Amino acid sequence: MARWEPNARERLAKAALELFRERGFDEAAVAEIAARAGLTERTFFRYFADKREVLFGGASELEERLAAALAGAPADLRPLDAVAVALEATSSLFEERRAFAKARQAIVAAHPALRERELIKLALLGDVMAAALRRRGVADAAASLAGETGIAVFKLAFERWLGDERKRDLAHHVRESLAELKAVAGAEVGRLAKRRSAAARGRR
Amino acid sequence: MARWEPNARERLAKAALELFRERGFDEAAVAEIAARAGLTERTFFRYFADKREVLFGGASELEERLAAALAGAPADLRPLDAVAVALEATSSLFEERRAFAKARQAIVAAHPALRERELIKLALLGDVMAAALRRRGVADAAASLAGETGIAVFKLAFERWLGDERKRDLAHHVRESLAELKAVAGAEVGRLAKRRSAAARGRR
Repeated sequence: MARWEPNARERLAKAALELFRERGFDEAAVAEIAARAGLTERTFFRYFADKREVLFGGASELEERLAAALAGAPADLRPLDAVAVALEATSSLFEERRAFAKARQAIVAAHPALRERELIKLALLGDVMAAALRRRGVADAAASLAGETGIAVFKLAFERWLGDERKRDLAHHVRESLAELKAVAGAEVGRLAKRRSAAARGRR
Repeated sequence: MARWEPNARERLAKAALELFRERGFDEAAVAEIAARAGLTERTFFRYFADKREVLFGGASELEERLAAALAGAPADLRPLDAVAVALEATSSLFEERRAFAKARQAIVAAHPALRERELIKLALLGDVMAAALRRRGVADAAASLAGETGIAVFKLAFERWLGDERKRDLAHHVRESLAELKAVAGAEVGRLAKRRSAAARGRR
């Protein structure tokens, strides 16, 4: 019975974001979302368990990407540098979705319960990274710290990526935000580190 | 009409934790908590808005302590070091409450909705620290990073403090956890930093 609809997921997501923005998340009904997308409620529920999932779906893809990138990162990286490599590896998941991500962020930011859901989702991502670090042999506490700190870096990078008029990719902003975290933590960055890595290149 | 009851808050909190542990948070009723404490429900509600507040009250005291300590920390500290000083300053709030904190932690850890509430409470504490850092003139992004990273340090320190058989204070564990964070982030710690601070002392 179900007719295949081209781009049904994207059409539904776009319609949902429009309605969330126009009428507020709580007021927008699934029936309206489906109608605006020119689809049925039944089709909506084939893609999303509920309207919140329009905003919070895709977490498992992100988690898998992070875990795989951490498993494959060079063994001699420090925990937080490995996390940064993994965060950079998610960049391509987002590049085509800047407009969606921006609209989504505005809706989440305006709604306390959605902001809480976002915090919880990010904390879970931190746990996923910490678990992947433990599988790399990183000690328990260090893995937790690197996972949680990685989320702080990711949040800042994502925010800057959303607002970047020069459209540099997320990976660029991850690197910048990581450098900033290191400066905040009193890490060895800047001139000294650059001189050292230049010296290391010279020795090769 | 209200009769003054000595230590009513403490008796209620203790009774609540016992009942949460014995019967589960959801099953324990305020009437039972009050009865076990030898007090009335009315007295319970004079101290707590609901039973969840037994576990999550006291946040404003902690926030004030953190903000005040950040305002008063030496001006030349790096953001995350200032955060660590503030976290150390909360140590005395907890020292007499290790048994309570331990029982509380077990109850929160066993209940998904309470774990979520704990995450949100911690995120708010991070926001409080970030705001206090901005008032110190720290740039916006650096303040956010230091606030969030500080929470990761605090969580680890608190967990270790709870489990510390040698009963070292929370401030001790904050310092240890901060050093670990710096190592994870690739910060300049350990021998090099020690040598430097020894050299700095020698110059005084």
